[in-house]
Amino acid sequence: MAEYIESLERLSEQFGRLEGVGKKSAMRMAFSVLELSDEEAASFAQSILDAKQKIHLCPVCQNLTDRELCNVCADPGRDGSIICVVNDPRALLAMERVREFRGVYHVLHGLISPMNGVTPDQLKIKELLERIQRGGVEEVIVATDPNVEGEATAMYLSRLLRPLGVKVTRLAYGVPVGADLEYADEITLFRALEGRRNF
Amino acid sequence: MAEYIESLERLSEQFGRLEGVGKKSAMRMAFSVLELSDEEAASFAQSILDAKQKIHLCPVCQNLTDRELCNVCADPGRDGSIICVVNDPRALLAMERVREFRGVYHVLHGLISPMNGVTPDQLKIKELLERIQRGGVEEVIVATDPNVEGEATAMYLSRLLRPLGVKVTRLAYGVPVGADLEYADEITLFRALEGRRNF
Repeated sequence: MAEYIESLERLSEQFGRLEGVGKKSAMRMAFSVLELSDEEAASFAQSILDAKQKIHLCPVCQNLTDRELCNVCADPGRDGSIICVVNDPRALLAMERVREFRGVYHVLHGLISPMNGVTPDQLKIKELLERIQRGGVEEVIVATDPNVEGEATAMYLSRLLRPLGVKVTRLAYGVPVGADLEYADEITLFRALEGRRNF
Repeated sequence: MAEYIESLERLSEQFGRLEGVGKKSAMRMAFSVLELSDEEAASFAQSILDAKQKIHLCPVCQNLTDRELCNVCADPGRDGSIICVVNDPRALLAMERVREFRGVYHVLHGLISPMNGVTPDQLKIKELLERIQRGGVEEVIVATDPNVEGEATAMYLSRLLRPLGVKVTRLAYGVPVGADLEYADEITLFRALEGRRNF
């Protein structure tokens, strides 16, 4: 095409690398950046660097945080005896939106998926075991996504954790099967939490 | 929410400012940035600054470019006597994809819209007049969007330009090629019928 503008194409490619962004959306966003003021563009660029630099994993629950401990782990009002296990930080955010769960979390950063070559040792399962072995944990609620990988991971965790003497529960099927936890509405999530069952 | 991470929220807000990006998509993109390597994130940030810094308007046709003249204006093979007027650089890209038009362009950067407070003097119309007054232009094809604002702008341009002795034409209206007639709206069908051609 005659109208190739290198720096615009490069910016568009960068947007295209992000999850869920198609080629047309990426180009639209790149054009959109050109409409920002210089200051706005500079602050956009800086916010990317800031996010990458400041955000790391909470050493306790492996959630994302820009402080020493994440806000949940740092909150003395949360009940450390109940750990809710989620696959990623977005699922954790979804759980927090329910405003009902007063326990703490553990973020696996993935789900077991032999098809995609994801094995248990690539997830933050070792860290979960260590937390439980340090004592004080009574219940682990497995809130992995209600799909095949989520189920497999839940099963794996339940077999692994039961010998340690903790109660292992799973979110009730109130969450729509096959969907991403991230998109579940608060009421569905609340019902799922309320109706959790023993393995 | 307990799980507020300031730098993540700020990054998400930045994505949310871009055209066509909703709140959920913005947050997903922000999370996606965290999955980039440090180098990738740095090059993303840099590409925003680069695009803003390097891209400016072509002094002839007002299209975006990172060179002195845009690629079309700099191409001696293009016919400067036919100017195709488009509302924005994306429309220009769409026209270029046709690979049929060998004339040059003029980008208005907007459409006349009294409802949204956009008046002719806010568009690159003065620059178009100056081009035509410099001579050598025989035809102006008005290819503004086929909607109310596009029509109003086309009408305005046609009244303005005809006294200068240039031919002013408008893109043909009709049914889109490859589409089902069943789904064409009445106005489009009426225009297609009105503009029917002999075989």
